[in-house]
Amino acid sequence: MRIGIDIGGTKIVAGIVDNSGKVTARKKIFVGRHKGYPIVRNAIVQLVRDVLSENTMRPGSLEGIGVASAGQIDTEFKKILFSPNLGWHNVPLRDDIEAALKVHAFVDNDVNAATYGEWRFGAARGADNVLGVFIGTGIGGGIIIHGKVYRGSYNAGAEIGHLTLNPFGYPCNCGNTGCFEAYCGGRYIVERVKKHIKNGYRGKLWGLIHGDIAAINAGHVESGAALGDELCETIWTEVLEYLGAGLASMANLLNPEIIVLGGGVVYGTRHLIEDVKPILKKRAMAASLKNTKLVKAKLREDAAIIGAAFVEP
Amino acid sequence: MRIGIDIGGTKIVAGIVDNSGKVTARKKIFVGRHKGYPIVRNAIVQLVRDVLSENTMRPGSLEGIGVASAGQIDTEFKKILFSPNLGWHNVPLRDDIEAALKVHAFVDNDVNAATYGEWRFGAARGADNVLGVFIGTGIGGGIIIHGKVYRGSYNAGAEIGHLTLNPFGYPCNCGNTGCFEAYCGGRYIVERVKKHIKNGYRGKLWGLIHGDIAAINAGHVESGAALGDELCETIWTEVLEYLGAGLASMANLLNPEIIVLGGGVVYGTRHLIEDVKPILKKRAMAASLKNTKLVKAKLREDAAIIGAAFVEP
Repeated sequence: MRIGIDIGGTKIVAGIVDNSGKVTARKKIFVGRHKGYPIVRNAIVQLVRDVLSENTMRPGSLEGIGVASAGQIDTEFKKILFSPNLGWHNVPLRDDIEAALKVHAFVDNDVNAATYGEWRFGAARGADNVLGVFIGTGIGGGIIIHGKVYRGSYNAGAEIGHLTLNPFGYPCNCGNTGCFEAYCGGRYIVERVKKHIKNGYRGKLWGLIHGDIAAINAGHVESGAALGDELCETIWTEVLEYLGAGLASMANLLNPEIIVLGGGVVYGTRHLIEDVKPILKKRAMAASLKNTKLVKAKLREDAAIIGAAFVEP
Repeated sequence: MRIGIDIGGTKIVAGIVDNSGKVTARKKIFVGRHKGYPIVRNAIVQLVRDVLSENTMRPGSLEGIGVASAGQIDTEFKKILFSPNLGWHNVPLRDDIEAALKVHAFVDNDVNAATYGEWRFGAARGADNVLGVFIGTGIGGGIIIHGKVYRGSYNAGAEIGHLTLNPFGYPCNCGNTGCFEAYCGGRYIVERVKKHIKNGYRGKLWGLIHGDIAAINAGHVESGAALGDELCETIWTEVLEYLGAGLASMANLLNPEIIVLGGGVVYGTRHLIEDVKPILKKRAMAASLKNTKLVKAKLREDAAIIGAAFVEP
């Protein structure tokens, strides 16, 4: 048995993962950004102890602990060099977990782990070359080549959310303009909608969200577009077109066997994958896309937990 | 000794390459697109015989023959599935050369071969992960990962000229819009300039080209921009900005140790690499670019010949 831990922006989930890649138990805690590293680290260690003891297990029975975190991980998989979610810089999470629990541990990037999970146990099983695309608030991705996570020279590759799709396009949180995630990331889509609503736009969208502006998500925009809401149509058409262009770029560059699409925007919409397929097909080189499958992720919220439990850094 | 053959749009060059990667002799022939495959294939075989006999060598003394061709190569490196330069479809060049010369041969994509050449003997020697970017009439590229050419699942990867840099941008010959090469490929740059000249534009550019519209190349556009020619300034600024954005996209995705820039537009301009560096730096993720070098290709016109002679498919 192994443990996979997924450190998110608001919650941290630890899962016990068996050798078939199944999460047999999970437990979560909520964290706030205002809590510094030592407090959260201690909470993570306690979370592991708790999920183990609730399942009558001890740390000594574990083969390993893998931690998935957003942000940048060092090349030795010991430190989180930067966590955008928690504001951490250069924290030695691996050594701290190993010291506390006496179990082999490592940290990895969350979307690398999720892509590995989908390759090993999910929607991309058995494929040689895989591209994972996770569209949540932002966009992250992972690349599997010959069954191994491709990390780049300094463990800073696969930043697919920051492919430029328009050098003079929407501003992105990374400081650049026109990034893939500035067009298709959930946070950015919703911000564009909210801006119009705050400026007085109502349309058919207003009924869909029952006036609850804070609750708007990508699913509403897709539904609004289907109902003929003008704003939603404009925004969702743009999202699909840019998503197709981004996927086409990566298909041309990587010629993957499978592209796995996951993340909140994918799970929270109904027709995103089927609607983007013709755009991808129109935009990609025929030879590069000919044998490439576009599929939805299977492991959902467990992908990073399962991937982190098994990925070999 | 080996032979590398570079099949271009107008000429075919065969080079004898020694074990240190040096071209010790070369010979070329000119081809026209109107000549079909059998005639050109026979000419290639004769070219090899000629360059060998001129250097008192025989086919039997060769370790192998590598052929570099633009276009798409099959996964067994036997056939050119499609050659945009020569209009060939599905031609068995490898088997034909082997049958005629009784030497082990194979065919590979020309920019994959050139990137391999630069990695093995040129500007990217010793690097683990390399991105080769060749800006000629169009843009082609190659990716080296752990010392091997990354080819994608079906030998149709590294089509970097067809990264989308603007989904609603300039039309590209591939059928898509806004491709990297539609912004930065030599043919496209020159076409944009020519269109304005044909519409009556003169400016300082006119003196630079001595009225010879047919001779315009990217070097003139760079020089014109430096002299303050208005059209050249507009076009060259756009070229540099899109080139920086394209390189930033790939740095974020692949996090390579070295990016090698080659091709006619790079060799035919003076400051392209130093001018694009700050744009790349501004646009790429700091972590992805931190340790990445941007260098000019060293092997020039020999890169594909040398690479094809040595690359292991």
